[in-house]
Amino acid sequence: MKTKSYAVASATKPLAPFNLERRIPGERDVQIEILFCGVCHSDVHTVRDEWHGTTYPCVPGHEIIGRVTSVGAQVKKFKAGDIAGVGCLVDSCRTCGNCEGHLEQFCEKGAIFTYNSPDKHSGGLTFGGYSESIVVDEAFVLSIPKNLDLAATAPLLCAGITTYSPLRHHGVTKGQKVGVVGLGGLGHMGVKLAKALGAHVVVFTTSLNKVEDALRLGADEVVHSKDEAAMKKHLNSFHFILDTVAAKHDINAYLILLRRDGNLTQVGVPSEALDLDVSSLIFGRRSLSGSLIGGLKETQEMLDFCGQHSITSDIELIPIQMINEAYDRLVKGDVKYRFVIDMASLKQAQ
Amino acid sequence: MKTKSYAVASATKPLAPFNLERRIPGERDVQIEILFCGVCHSDVHTVRDEWHGTTYPCVPGHEIIGRVTSVGAQVKKFKAGDIAGVGCLVDSCRTCGNCEGHLEQFCEKGAIFTYNSPDKHSGGLTFGGYSESIVVDEAFVLSIPKNLDLAATAPLLCAGITTYSPLRHHGVTKGQKVGVVGLGGLGHMGVKLAKALGAHVVVFTTSLNKVEDALRLGADEVVHSKDEAAMKKHLNSFHFILDTVAAKHDINAYLILLRRDGNLTQVGVPSEALDLDVSSLIFGRRSLSGSLIGGLKETQEMLDFCGQHSITSDIELIPIQMINEAYDRLVKGDVKYRFVIDMASLKQAQ
Repeated sequence: MKTKSYAVASATKPLAPFNLERRIPGERDVQIEILFCGVCHSDVHTVRDEWHGTTYPCVPGHEIIGRVTSVGAQVKKFKAGDIAGVGCLVDSCRTCGNCEGHLEQFCEKGAIFTYNSPDKHSGGLTFGGYSESIVVDEAFVLSIPKNLDLAATAPLLCAGITTYSPLRHHGVTKGQKVGVVGLGGLGHMGVKLAKALGAHVVVFTTSLNKVEDALRLGADEVVHSKDEAAMKKHLNSFHFILDTVAAKHDINAYLILLRRDGNLTQVGVPSEALDLDVSSLIFGRRSLSGSLIGGLKETQEMLDFCGQHSITSDIELIPIQMINEAYDRLVKGDVKYRFVIDMASLKQAQ
Repeated sequence: MKTKSYAVASATKPLAPFNLERRIPGERDVQIEILFCGVCHSDVHTVRDEWHGTTYPCVPGHEIIGRVTSVGAQVKKFKAGDIAGVGCLVDSCRTCGNCEGHLEQFCEKGAIFTYNSPDKHSGGLTFGGYSESIVVDEAFVLSIPKNLDLAATAPLLCAGITTYSPLRHHGVTKGQKVGVVGLGGLGHMGVKLAKALGAHVVVFTTSLNKVEDALRLGADEVVHSKDEAAMKKHLNSFHFILDTVAAKHDINAYLILLRRDGNLTQVGVPSEALDLDVSSLIFGRRSLSGSLIGGLKETQEMLDFCGQHSITSDIELIPIQMINEAYDRLVKGDVKYRFVIDMASLKQAQ
């Protein structure tokens, strides 16, 4: 089926209208009319081939909220008219140890990501959510709580699960002291989620103009990370720190703020190596981990948790015609805190 | 009490005979005639002030095995004639959360190390095991299994616990695949202990001439870490890796060998920062930790475990008169695998 979308033709071209082909829904497929799609920093990295591995044309977008238009005969969880979500994954082998452990993002045969991944149906690559519709196997489609604003829910599918998964994996709970480094698309979700889990949340930022915003989002304290005296007050005190900074920065300054057996998890991926002072880990038996989105089961759990706690992303809604300008602003950190594309704009004359 | 020892007078002087003062044993003290003392790399770092913080004169040595010569009235675990051990710690506050949790090495008020730490009894600094006797509070004295060779047991007090603690903390058990990076004083203990815990042990070394030795010590496989093809065969396969290398090296090459949720623990402390590629941690939700010796309870557990499994260190026994030459050889890695000082030599004419 011909499907309107926005694609890039090469690393140096802007996003522009493109007609892609979606498969006819199979027995286990859900066809979704896309209503909203969040704009993730990964979209920019992929479009501009900054991670080396992009095949063109490329249609990005993996924070998808839409309405089910039809379902295959074997589909049980969805029916036409339902609101549904699609995140970063659209398939995996489903039989390896990681898939069986509900960690499809680490599929040993290679997870199939929502865009720029091999598509066994088309023989080409997967195309993402900057498009009017998508067809996805039921197992990779998520139910959306009815009480949430749909546009503001889209970013939960990537920014939400990316921050929720490490908070849960490291057992963040009531009464713990949790740090969030960086207040962007990921960081602002980290603050909301950690707060809803009952933690005492401290935001670290280099932008003094974000202090008020951090408090409004739920932070209990905000620390200017370049203020050495302010940093020193928090030595040996954190149970967990979520580091969302995707640029080179001094992680040792945060590691030494962890208490004994504390963990700092990186969810940002700096393109340069970080300088690690091993003594920051040895004293206090601290640890440093990474985390990558989350599996389907945990993504549904996160959505349900957000429904219960009325958590969505702070967004700026844009028509798709503004996407190239939005990318430039995103790179400069000029967004509070996530761009979401209103897909109705795609139907307009282009 | 005047006590013969070897001390250094400054960072650039050799170790030489020195008379230090030991306290009269108190009610809870154990007085020990030192029979053997292991030579740890930390001794060299401290003597040469490479960690910046050495006060002179300095008497190093924290791998102490000796015979109890007298005990205070309140001492319950030891009597004159017993064989006893003293490791890296001789005191701590005993009331903070870490002390109560049997992790005295992380005492929040500051653990009292066996040498170069503030000594509340003398008002000066603690003096270590390169001496004919030592007086230590019973709570910091270890019982030594009767079946072990005493000289070869001395290194268990630091090299043994430093490697045992992270293996246990990360739950290394039968059937797991465990890597040991570097085959020196720490690494060779790591191999023996991991093997005794039932793991499949793979040694990584840059010295091809250590292959035979690694196998003799119990390794199931040995990988030359500069052989990229050999390294690649182990991608995504390790439950745990113990990294004992105290020089700058590429940890990313080992992190990517961990399976999902695997952990690499550093026990060596490189003086330069390591370059960390965060993606090595993000894919596979891997983690990187540090570990510092172990608490008293776990040190006793380690000694008992070594007794049950007849594990000691491979040593080269030296008279104390050879200590300066031994330091030079240790720095070059020219020892298999630990120097131990025969303290009887201290009684000789000097």
